[in-house]
Parts: sequence; structure tokens; C-alpha cells
Amino acid sequence: MHTSNNPTAPVVTQGPLPASAKIYKSGKIHPDISVPMREISLHPTAGEPPVVVYDASGPYSDPKIAIAIERGLPRLRARWIEARGDVEAYAGRDVRPEDNGSVGAKHLTPEFPVRHRPLKGKNGKSVTQLSYARAGIVTPEMEFVAIRENLGRERLRNAVERDGEDFGADIPDFVTPEFVRDEVAKGRAIIPANINHPEAEPMIIGRNFLVKINANIGNSAVTSSMAEEVEKMVWATRWGADTVMDLSTGRNIHNIREWIIRNAPVPIGTVPLYQALEKVDGVAEDLSWEVYRDTLIEQAEQGVDYFTIHAGVRLHYVPLTVGRVTGIVSRGGSIMAKWCLHHHRESFLYEHFEEICDIMRAYDVSFSLGDGLRPGSIADANDRAQFAELETLGELTKIAWTKDCQVMIEGPGHVPMHKIKANMDKQLAICGEAPFYTLGPLTTDIAPGYDHITSGIGAAMIGWFGTAMLCYVTPKEHLGLPDRDDVKTGVITYKIAAHAADLAKGHPAAKIRDDALSRSRFEFRWEDQFNLSLDPETARAFHDQTLPKEAHKVAHFCSMCGPKFCSMRISQEIQTEAQKLGMAAMAEKYRSGGDLYMPVGREGQ
Amino acid sequence: MHTSNNPTAPVVTQGPLPASAKIYKSGKIHPDISVPMREISLHPTAGEPPVVVYDASGPYSDPKIAIAIERGLPRLRARWIEARGDVEAYAGRDVRPEDNGSVGAKHLTPEFPVRHRPLKGKNGKSVTQLSYARAGIVTPEMEFVAIRENLGRERLRNAVERDGEDFGADIPDFVTPEFVRDEVAKGRAIIPANINHPEAEPMIIGRNFLVKINANIGNSAVTSSMAEEVEKMVWATRWGADTVMDLSTGRNIHNIREWIIRNAPVPIGTVPLYQALEKVDGVAEDLSWEVYRDTLIEQAEQGVDYFTIHAGVRLHYVPLTVGRVTGIVSRGGSIMAKWCLHHHRESFLYEHFEEICDIMRAYDVSFSLGDGLRPGSIADANDRAQFAELETLGELTKIAWTKDCQVMIEGPGHVPMHKIKANMDKQLAICGEAPFYTLGPLTTDIAPGYDHITSGIGAAMIGWFGTAMLCYVTPKEHLGLPDRDDVKTGVITYKIAAHAADLAKGHPAAKIRDDALSRSRFEFRWEDQFNLSLDPETARAFHDQTLPKEAHKVAHFCSMCGPKFCSMRISQEIQTEAQKLGMAAMAEKYRSGGDLYMPVGREGQ
Repeated sequence: MHTSNNPTAPVVTQGPLPASAKIYKSGKIHPDISVPMREISLHPTAGEPPVVVYDASGPYSDPKIAIAIERGLPRLRARWIEARGDVEAYAGRDVRPEDNGSVGAKHLTPEFPVRHRPLKGKNGKSVTQLSYARAGIVTPEMEFVAIRENLGRERLRNAVERDGEDFGADIPDFVTPEFVRDEVAKGRAIIPANINHPEAEPMIIGRNFLVKINANIGNSAVTSSMAEEVEKMVWATRWGADTVMDLSTGRNIHNIREWIIRNAPVPIGTVPLYQALEKVDGVAEDLSWEVYRDTLIEQAEQGVDYFTIHAGVRLHYVPLTVGRVTGIVSRGGSIMAKWCLHHHRESFLYEHFEEICDIMRAYDVSFSLGDGLRPGSIADANDRAQFAELETLGELTKIAWTKDCQVMIEGPGHVPMHKIKANMDKQLAICGEAPFYTLGPLTTDIAPGYDHITSGIGAAMIGWFGTAMLCYVTPKEHLGLPDRDDVKTGVITYKIAAHAADLAKGHPAAKIRDDALSRSRFEFRWEDQFNLSLDPETARAFHDQTLPKEAHKVAHFCSMCGPKFCSMRISQEIQTEAQKLGMAAMAEKYRSGGDLYMPVGREGQ
Repeated sequence: MHTSNNPTAPVVTQGPLPASAKIYKSGKIHPDISVPMREISLHPTAGEPPVVVYDASGPYSDPKIAIAIERGLPRLRARWIEARGDVEAYAGRDVRPEDNGSVGAKHLTPEFPVRHRPLKGKNGKSVTQLSYARAGIVTPEMEFVAIRENLGRERLRNAVERDGEDFGADIPDFVTPEFVRDEVAKGRAIIPANINHPEAEPMIIGRNFLVKINANIGNSAVTSSMAEEVEKMVWATRWGADTVMDLSTGRNIHNIREWIIRNAPVPIGTVPLYQALEKVDGVAEDLSWEVYRDTLIEQAEQGVDYFTIHAGVRLHYVPLTVGRVTGIVSRGGSIMAKWCLHHHRESFLYEHFEEICDIMRAYDVSFSLGDGLRPGSIADANDRAQFAELETLGELTKIAWTKDCQVMIEGPGHVPMHKIKANMDKQLAICGEAPFYTLGPLTTDIAPGYDHITSGIGAAMIGWFGTAMLCYVTPKEHLGLPDRDDVKTGVITYKIAAHAADLAKGHPAAKIRDDALSRSRFEFRWEDQFNLSLDPETARAFHDQTLPKEAHKVAHFCSMCGPKFCSMRISQEIQTEAQKLGMAAMAEKYRSGGDLYMPVGREGQ
């Protein structure tokens, strides 16, 4: 499952998931696009077609594509970008020692072997998906995501039974490229797609599409290396991460990021402030607009697809956090608050917001407007500081939109269940329906070690209410940096939350996989049950802990109940008996008011 | 942590949790009652009193109490029961070979060494907590649970800030013994407390009390032994299980249950149908009222505190399940459906329901009216079969109440988020506010191996909506029997769900622990953060994976961000700086409309 042609290149996980094949669909408007999906084959006894599922894993799960980490992934969007004729290649910014924390040669992560000249919009022209959408252009990216989102819906097109509560969203039966364009044009969805990250497969974030999840990776001053981070990125997408944020804060930050982006099949997000702080040796007061601006350009040229920018942490909000139980818990928020307070000045991010827009639109870097004042404890949920910042994010959204920039809004943190919906409702009202992107929320503070679960609860709920992308939380939250196992646990937990949300919203095709898995469960197709699950390896391993033999994979019972007590087996017998008795007809009779199955008398009453 | 004085006795986990001491509070009406709680000490720098938390673990966590599994726990309720003067001891039913599945001597689990003569109500008199409550009697059990539920509220009594949405529940600021009596009398809460299980510490299940959780244990024909099951019971209560259901279905079922009950500090529930089926060699058609009745008496004499009875699975409901994706998934439900269908007769449980009540009230065994037709897949949620059965459960509740029997109602299974609330609303309306006891619900079918999480989401929500007790689901659900680790994961997940529900309902003292933990987090009291968490061992282990040194337990950062990027540290610096600047006063000024911190102009706008 691991491969490497080069001793310095990291080793990453490859190969298909069990019983899975990669399939590709081409476009109609843009016939050369090739949209990946995963097709899960079922046992012949199922008599059912394969189940097609969304696939974020990129070429790594396609055995036909040769992977070479030191060359990077195929640049699938390069032609589309070129064909628009609105970008120019240029020399780009030179890598400077401080970009890697001035690390000595001995500890320097090697540079990525291939250097591509960066592109930007000609003469500062906006090259964002938003500007194309507004101009009425359906880009290949838009058709790509339309096909990607439609998965399974084609078959249902004329038989859609909608069942859900979507709280005023506008989820179509079928996603057309035009619908995608329209949602992007309205600012209700974004396609994070830096023109310098052509390796990424387009995906869309918006309330009227499948709920997405983000996985955070990144080294810190204390631990972890480039090889680990590249593998974590690949690993996270293998299990379903739709985007990955590189939150590295240590040294080698530039070079590690380059390895990640060149090999990332999903959009990559960052918090540029972290690297800017490294450039001023970690002294928040020494930050300046110039250092920050330089970092934005550095990362935009590398291909980062979205930037978290904490421009809503304004000087006069800082006092609102003083009485909090946990103060400011966002790293970016605390850094900016410290800067504002020390200089007793308005945030340079707020003051230079339009210049930031001008940079971002020249590369199509999307905004993820940071929630620097999000609550870090149940006690601080929905407080004045949090919602004051949200008001500012609404104001900034409108400015970014006038600049043709794509925008999403970051939210939650720690919020008890009864205060979750207010967050979504306020965000929709204040931020003009720009997509919401929330961390959890964690619904209690008392379970460090299990915060994927405390937050999975809140994530499922806020996803149902309308959040477009859920930022995962791993079991290590509050305690340490996630390792590979933690990344997987976090991703699977958030895939559960996102899928539960899709079901509850009434996404027209979401239930296909549940139904297929449940049928396989009822029919004792154990292999199908494993293969259709979010984590086939774990499902199989748990089953095999007590019943390891191959014969048990066809057994009509499991170790939970044993054969005599298997309700599924008995229930099948009931169905067989019912067929003999023509029970379906009887049921019909009962439903239509016949008296065969009417209540009989009960003794002693 | 493990002890045994006897080679045949099982070894169980003992000893206090970290930084924890067992404390006891005595009663006012009944001065001899001694209500256990766990007191968690904080570091002296906290300057805070210890945090007192609910404690389901019984004597095992009290180092002052000598445990001898082969003698059983102290019989704390024996005097209270005797003092009421309404019970009589009698010879009781002899143990028969079929009670243990006619197992041979070689494989027979040894009998429990001490035999107590069973008690029952004199001349069939009702000895239920409901009958006392209706008679206006505040029993020691009622005062015990009042004190137990009040934990932490005494201090808040005059300073309660209620914050929550309770959907029409009636949670008092302070729980008096009279309030408990009244809730029991109304049937809105139950105290499962068989007079033959005097070892159990009383607890209450009702919408106006803390949300409780149940853990299932039990061997099956395929796997596991008595020693394992006793340890699983102790282990489950150590982490917070409020009741334990013994769902054993294999041989030795009588003897294993006796070991469990004699050592259980919490109420024990069973599904008597399972043992009845063993007595007829697993042939559902051979079941009869006589075999079932015998089993009820056998288990009532042993001290089982509540019985799941699937009396709502009526003959004419069976056809309603034929078109389902997963048919009938309740073991008890499928057995009864098969019996009904085979004999084409009404269920003997339904027909003999009043006789069942007469047996149960003579021992104070509570009803847990089983949801034999609960949905086993998203596709089957909230269907006709499920709600038809619920109607019957409502009818049976009223009959049980006329017989002075305590009743709770079982519910959910697999239900997508948008269909959860309807379950709670219907149950409240149909079953006269009898407590609801739900499995999960699982909010999607696609994650076997993670069904503690798919169901933890639904459990938190339905707990918020009003469910009184949540039946846990472990990671092994659908795949195999849970081992010790799975039991712990299931219990902790459900403690999270129950606590998140308490917070959202606005339970007046629930937030105390969250706030204490969050303050310790903000002040870098790592030890306090571990000790206050639901699972101190895991929290500590996760932290130590990257920062194992003792010095790091006082470090003002962790491995997630390292020192420069620690938002908590920066935020503390902000607070210090703010104090210097008199920032709190500034904040006040801002809030009251002063202009010092009014929005400043932004460049270029």
C-alpha cells in the first residue's frame, strides 16, 4: 500500500478501498473533464447495481495512475485555466530563509524538486469563479462539481421522494452546471480553486450541496515532519476529507507546504498569520501589514486555495473578551488581539481589507473569514464578543463580494445544543447566505480525549441547520497534535456528521447508501456491509474479532446474539412465512380497514 | 486495582478515580441514608472548592469498603424494606437445570455462595415505589434520589441562572423528596428497585431529573463468561452507567445473573423472554405463557429491577413489517412476532398483561415496555409498524398504572435527525409522560464500527427533547459482542450525550463541571483538566503521548500549538495587559455607549 521511488520523497498510502473501483464521468459542456467517483461492487446475490459514492481521495486510489510524490499530481486544471486567456505567468517571489523559519541546512526540509512559475490574473484582473459566474460563464470547474454532486441522482431523477427538513435551503432534485453557476454568482457557494493549484479536483461548498468536511494537519514547533504531514493529507482525503488545512507553525513551513500542495487532490487552506508570526520570531507586536502582505503573496503563488483571515477581530472587541471563562481561544484571534491592544490600533487586517481582496482575486484564493473570537467553552457561547465579530464578518463579506472574491465564514467552537441554531440563523442573516464553515461545535467541555464525539454531535446538528462545511475535531483536541489514527477517527466522525446532516436536510440521493447497506445487513451479506461502510477495515476487523472464519462471512447470524437470537434471521423467516400466507395482502387488508387483523379482545379487560 | 479473595470469584476493577474521594450525604427525613458522591479535588492554585459529581460506581470506588465478590455488596436497602412491614420471606423457586440451559457439570458456572430467601409483598400486596408515592409516603429511596440529584445545587440554590430549552419539562431549581414523590406518583419518573436487590443504590429515571444511561452486557451462545460479565458490569458503572441490562442468552444464564445482581450497585434490567426461549431450546413456537411466567418469577426472586416486556408486538402488527428494509430488528420483537404468526394467535404477553402486572408489583419490578418493532434502518424510521406498537404501549402503560406498577417506555433505533423529535412528542402524548428510554437513535446506517457515534448524535438530541434514559450503543454494534474497551467507549460516549442533553435542557447544576474544567484549561492546570474529565486516564495518556515529562504538566502550552502559538497563553497576557489598562472598565464604557472603543474609520472605504 506504500510506495516511493525516491528515498527523500515521503511514502503515502495508495490503492483502492475494498471492492471499489474508480470511475470517471465526462462533461457535456466541457467534454474533457473527468469527474472521479468510487463504485462499490456488491455480491452477485444482491442482484443490485454497484453503489457509487463521492470520492475525495484523488489519483491515490486509482491503481492505473502512477504516483510519484516528488513530481506531484497531474495538473488537471492547467489547460482550463490557460484556455481562459486571462492569466500570466511570472517569475514570482524568491523563497527566503525566513519563509522556512531560517532553519539551518541540516534541518532544512528539501525543496520540492519541480518549480512551476506562478500565474496571476493579467493586470490584477479578477480570475475568481465568482467573477466568471457573474459574467454568466459556466467554467469547467462548475460543470465538474455539478457532475460530482449529482452522484446517484441520475437514476432517481424521475423518482425523487424528498424527505427532510432543510430550514429554507434550496436543494434541487438535480444539480445542473447552471445551478452551480447561479449559486456561486449569488455568493451562496464557493469553489476554492487557486489558479496555482491545478492539481486539485474542483469541489463546492454551499448550503444547497452535500455537506463537506475539512481535516486539519500541520506540524508545530514541538513535533512532526514533512513526510508525516504529506501522508496525513493523503490519508485524510482517503477517508473523505473534502479540504485540508495546513496549520503548520514550526520551521520549514514553506517547503512542507509546497510538498503538500503539489500532491493535494483537494483544496488546501491555511492561516497566513501563522507564517507571518514565524517571520517576526513569534513576537505578535512585531507583525506588520508588510510582513503579512508578503506572506499572502508567497502562499497565493504556491497555490493555497483559501486563507483564514481574522479581519473581524477589531480593537474595540478585545475588551469584550476580558470577562470570559476561556478568553480568546483562536490562535489567529489571540495574536491579532494582542497586536491591537499593544499598539492600541485597529487591526491591520481590517484596515487593509480591500488590498487583501485585490491580492486574493488575482489568484482566486477564497476567503475563509476567521472567527477569532469564537467561544472556547460552554460558558462563553453566543456571547457579545462572538456576535460582534460576526457582524463585522458580514460587513467584510459584502466588501469582498464587491471585489469578486469568493467568501465563506468561520463559526462555532464550544456551544451547547440549545444555542446552536441561533448561530446558523444569525450567520445566514448577517452574512448574506455566504457559506458557513464551523468547528464542531463541541456540545460540552467535560470530555477531553473524546472531543471528536462532543463536537460530532454539534457538527451534525449545525450541518442539518445549514452549515456548508464542518471542520473536524480529533480525539487529541485540547491535548496534543493528532497522529495518523486520530486523523482517520476525526475524518470518519465528521463524515458521519455530514452524512447525517445530508439525510436530515433531505438531500435526494443521500439515503441510497444507507438503504444499500441496510439491505446487505438484513440479507447477511457481511462483505457488502463492510464494503459499503465508511470504514470497511474497522467494520471487518470488529466482526472478525469474535468470528474470524471465512465461513462466518456467510453466516446468518453474528456473535452479538448467536443463531437462535438473531432477529434478522427470525425476521427473514417471518417474511418467508408471510409470503406463504400471502401476508403482504393481509397487511394491505389491515391498512385498508379489513377486519382480519383488527384488535382481538384481551383477557381480563 | 484488581482484587479477589477466592480463586473462583471474578476479579473486578476497584479503587477511586484520580484525585477523587467518595463522600456521603445523609438524609433529613431518613437520617440513616447515606448518598454517595464523588468529590474531585483541584490544585491549590485554583483557589476553588472540590467539584462534586454524580457517582454510579458504588462501593468499588471507596477504598474504605472491603469488596468480596463471593459475598456480594452490602444490602443497604434491606432495613428500609423490612421497616415497611409489608413483605414476607418465602422459600422461593428452586433452581432447575433448564434455568442454566441444562449445562453439564463441567461447564456449569458455580452457584453464588450465599443464598438469600426471596421477599415478596404480603398476600400479593403492591410494594412498588409508585404505590407508596400515591399513598403520600416519602420512602428512603425517594429521599436518597432527591439528595443524589441535587448535587451541586445547594450552593446555587439562591443564585440559579437558568439557561436552556426544556420543551415543556418541569425541572425544579432544587429537588425535594416531596418533588420526587410527586413525580413518581404521577408516573413521570420511576425508581427501579426490586425488593430482592437491596444492594442497589436508588436512582431515578424521569424527564425532570438528570438524563441517565444504560449499558448492556451479557454473554451469548458464541462467546464470553461469568467473570467477564461481572467485571463488565462493575467496569460500566465505574465510568457512569446508571443501570445495566444483562442480555445474556447462552447457558448458565441463571447463575451468571445471580453473581451480577449480588454485586451490582445499580439497577439491573433483563429481557425475560431470552431466558424463556432458552428453556424451550430456542424454538420460538414452543414458548408458552407458563414458561414465561415461571421465568418472570425466577428473575423477580433474584432481584432484577426492570423487565423489558415486548407486549406491544401484536399479531395484527406483524404484516406491517413485511415491506420493511430491515424487518424486525428487536430480538424480543422478532421472537414474539414469530410466535404470533406461527400460532396465528394474539401475543401471550398482551393477553396476560394484567397477570404480569400482578407478579411485578409484588416485587417492585418496573416495566420497560419493549419496542419490538423499532426501526432497524433509516428507511424504516417512524413507520406505521413502529407507531402502531407505541399506541399499544400507551394502552398498556395505563393498565400497569392501575396496578400500581412503575413503567418506562422503550424507543428509537435508527432515525434520521429530522424525525427524532416526532418520536419524543408522540411518546409524551401517547404514554401519559411515562419516562422514555431509547436506544440511540442511530442517525445513519453507513458507519458500522462507529455506531456509538452515529447513535451518540441522536441520543444527545432525544435526551434534550425529553428522553429520560439513553441505552448505549458500542462500537461493536451490528458486528459483535462488546469487550471491556467497547463497554467503556460506549459508556463515555453516552455520558457525553446525557450531559450535553442536561446542559441544553438547562439543568441548573450541569454547567458547574464544564465551567470548572474550562477554567482549569484556561489556567493551564493540566492535572485538574484531566481529573475533571469523564475519562481522566485517556485525557492524560493523550497529552503524554507528545509531552510526557512532569514539567509539561505545568507548562503554559501544549504540543498542539507550542508556546508561541498558544492562544490561551496569549489570551492570559491580554487579560493581564487589560488589567493594567483598566480594560474591564473600558469594556464597560464600550458597552454603555462610550466612544473610546467605537469603530474607527477603515482605510479605503
